[in-house]
Amino acid sequence: MKKLLLILLLVGSFGLLQSAEDCKPNLYNIPGAQYPCVYPDGRATFRVNAPDAKSVVVSVGKRYEMTKGPDGVWTVTTPPLVVGFHYYWLIIDGLQVADPATQTFFGSGWYNSGIEIPEQGVDYYHAKDVPHGEVRSRWYFSKVTGKWRRAYVYTPPDYDTNLKARYPVLYLLHGWGENQWGWHIQGRMDFIMDNLIAEKKARPMIVVMDNLNAVKPGEDESLYHARGLRAAAPPKPEAGRGAAPGRGAAPGRGPGFGPGFGATFTEMMFTDLIPMIEKNYRVAPGRENRAMAGLSMGGMQTFTTALGNLDKFAWIGNFSGAGLRGDFDPKTLYNGVFANPEEFNKKVRLLWMGIGTEEGMGMKSLHEALTKHGIKNVYYESPGTAHEWLTWRRCLYEFAQKLFR
Amino acid sequence: MKKLLLILLLVGSFGLLQSAEDCKPNLYNIPGAQYPCVYPDGRATFRVNAPDAKSVVVSVGKRYEMTKGPDGVWTVTTPPLVVGFHYYWLIIDGLQVADPATQTFFGSGWYNSGIEIPEQGVDYYHAKDVPHGEVRSRWYFSKVTGKWRRAYVYTPPDYDTNLKARYPVLYLLHGWGENQWGWHIQGRMDFIMDNLIAEKKARPMIVVMDNLNAVKPGEDESLYHARGLRAAAPPKPEAGRGAAPGRGAAPGRGPGFGPGFGATFTEMMFTDLIPMIEKNYRVAPGRENRAMAGLSMGGMQTFTTALGNLDKFAWIGNFSGAGLRGDFDPKTLYNGVFANPEEFNKKVRLLWMGIGTEEGMGMKSLHEALTKHGIKNVYYESPGTAHEWLTWRRCLYEFAQKLFR
Repeated sequence: MKKLLLILLLVGSFGLLQSAEDCKPNLYNIPGAQYPCVYPDGRATFRVNAPDAKSVVVSVGKRYEMTKGPDGVWTVTTPPLVVGFHYYWLIIDGLQVADPATQTFFGSGWYNSGIEIPEQGVDYYHAKDVPHGEVRSRWYFSKVTGKWRRAYVYTPPDYDTNLKARYPVLYLLHGWGENQWGWHIQGRMDFIMDNLIAEKKARPMIVVMDNLNAVKPGEDESLYHARGLRAAAPPKPEAGRGAAPGRGAAPGRGPGFGPGFGATFTEMMFTDLIPMIEKNYRVAPGRENRAMAGLSMGGMQTFTTALGNLDKFAWIGNFSGAGLRGDFDPKTLYNGVFANPEEFNKKVRLLWMGIGTEEGMGMKSLHEALTKHGIKNVYYESPGTAHEWLTWRRCLYEFAQKLFR
Repeated sequence: MKKLLLILLLVGSFGLLQSAEDCKPNLYNIPGAQYPCVYPDGRATFRVNAPDAKSVVVSVGKRYEMTKGPDGVWTVTTPPLVVGFHYYWLIIDGLQVADPATQTFFGSGWYNSGIEIPEQGVDYYHAKDVPHGEVRSRWYFSKVTGKWRRAYVYTPPDYDTNLKARYPVLYLLHGWGENQWGWHIQGRMDFIMDNLIAEKKARPMIVVMDNLNAVKPGEDESLYHARGLRAAAPPKPEAGRGAAPGRGAAPGRGPGFGPGFGATFTEMMFTDLIPMIEKNYRVAPGRENRAMAGLSMGGMQTFTTALGNLDKFAWIGNFSGAGLRGDFDPKTLYNGVFANPEEFNKKVRLLWMGIGTEEGMGMKSLHEALTKHGIKNVYYESPGTAHEWLTWRRCLYEFAQKLFR
């Protein structure tokens, strides 16, 4: 009993036993920056040199007030943070800015900072000594939007040597307020695919990452604008920002997640993106070689585009993007695509859904209702993670292993 | 006379005649951000919503104090700025941060904001309806540094269709405090190359962009650290930061621009980078198909690496990176590589040097001394620009047309 108490005491004060030297610079710090740093137990220390500021807060999931030392430097050490990637920012005298000490990442519609809390014993998203694919920046002109767009295209390690091979393609989408960089940088999708392919756990495939932001000339694009940066734009009536389809204020193709959500992106994808990819890359033909998946708003877009066009997609993934609340009838969802389970199961080779256990975004109820209704589907829960990138790295890792088999 | 006066008055007050509606959002603003905006005459208006701040300054070349309005929003309109790309940042109550309203760019060792002042009548660095190449992210392990590195590789538009072709290669370097993204993003090198190749003004070539930051385990890398972000790191003795070779404090391979400057990068390039490129891409063999160029510190690196290894490079470009001051003797420069002009001229197909007229970095004196000494070289001046990206876009545009001819 005494021994147990001692152990409990030791465990409880483990954080206190770690010295400042145990705090290792965050993976995304600029060269030479020691702070933010992360302790082995996941606590992070932030430092900001702002002697003239009245108030400095760091927002990393929650908000933590920083304390000014006699040297004018503000610091705070957080409680242990969940492993994985987190966006964060500073609030200096009320102004929300990126921490100048880190690389910036496009999330929530602007370039904020990022911190990586290392995950022990897990290396599937790290650079390893395996053949590496490329992520290629590819410009193309969209007839639908009337603008140049940039896609990022992952090609597998053997793409430039195995010249007779044609590859299946996964169209992989980011979430709200992010862009086509998200999966590459925050998601580390290239390492995930390289490692899976090296272990023969996934088939070599092309992965296309494009930008959800697709509007025709004159269409309202305010859905894609950052919140909270009001100085940047004159005040406007709020666009619909509901998280669930059907909750948005605006009908048609406009802003919000209304009934017409994602129609322009779908049209752009079929008119511009897919033809450009199939013209320029050695793509295996047909719906059996075409998958679509996305996270959060990209998951919603995937359901809108792929469930509405089963003649074009046989593999479908939705990571944290179902957004269904309350009662629903599987038979009438998505224009009745699930009405006939036998027909659906014959057409769709994989319907995959994943979510973090800390999210509560209603994916489980969809999975259960579909299963009860006779729709084959795979459901995955990422333990301990919220609506954040580690959930989606894990989703990709699981989903990619089941693709094109 | 009266007429002339009227015209002068009109021209003089032109700025005042432009209304707020003439101020167009900066090219790099986040979606939806109206500010910063740029007037047709190059003035820029910045806006920051920081009601609790005591002082807000924008630093874009010069520092401009912003003024707080009754709504708590700080604004300033600058005098006309020089055309092209400029890094900028905000100083909020003494803390230097990126403006949350724009994309961020890695410069001076951290991620600051960027503004583009449009250049009328010039489109060689814009996306045009021509075949586009790719910029590929390529990971590789460096035996010299003991770390994974990422290169960006531009492949020309016909690379994936003209499968029997082998291409000459330009190794193209960024400047101090930047990284391998600089030429792609700030420099818009892909558009410059795509447009030149489409007009047959440049030969299709591969362009390799790597990171100057190359140190062996244990070597001091403080040369690559941001200045002015002191909170990020514990205080250290200042490393040599002189702009001219030989002025640095530290000898050997250490920090600063001392005699050993660039030795590790050179070794890494020959041991790791060039073999990786020649293994993975369809590269035309030999020194006649290999060029090296860089801007500022990358120009210094180019002279160090290429002038020291003429058996490996036949085409050499230096953009704003000679850094010579005071008296020098061409015969003894760079270990005597210019001692025998006849020999040098036979070996080197192109020695190209460019600089902005507003820089004063000593490139002209080198050009004149070399010319007088009998060394063939090309000298270019970018009118009206300083040590900044428009100088280097113009340099690449001119230099690339003369390469591999």
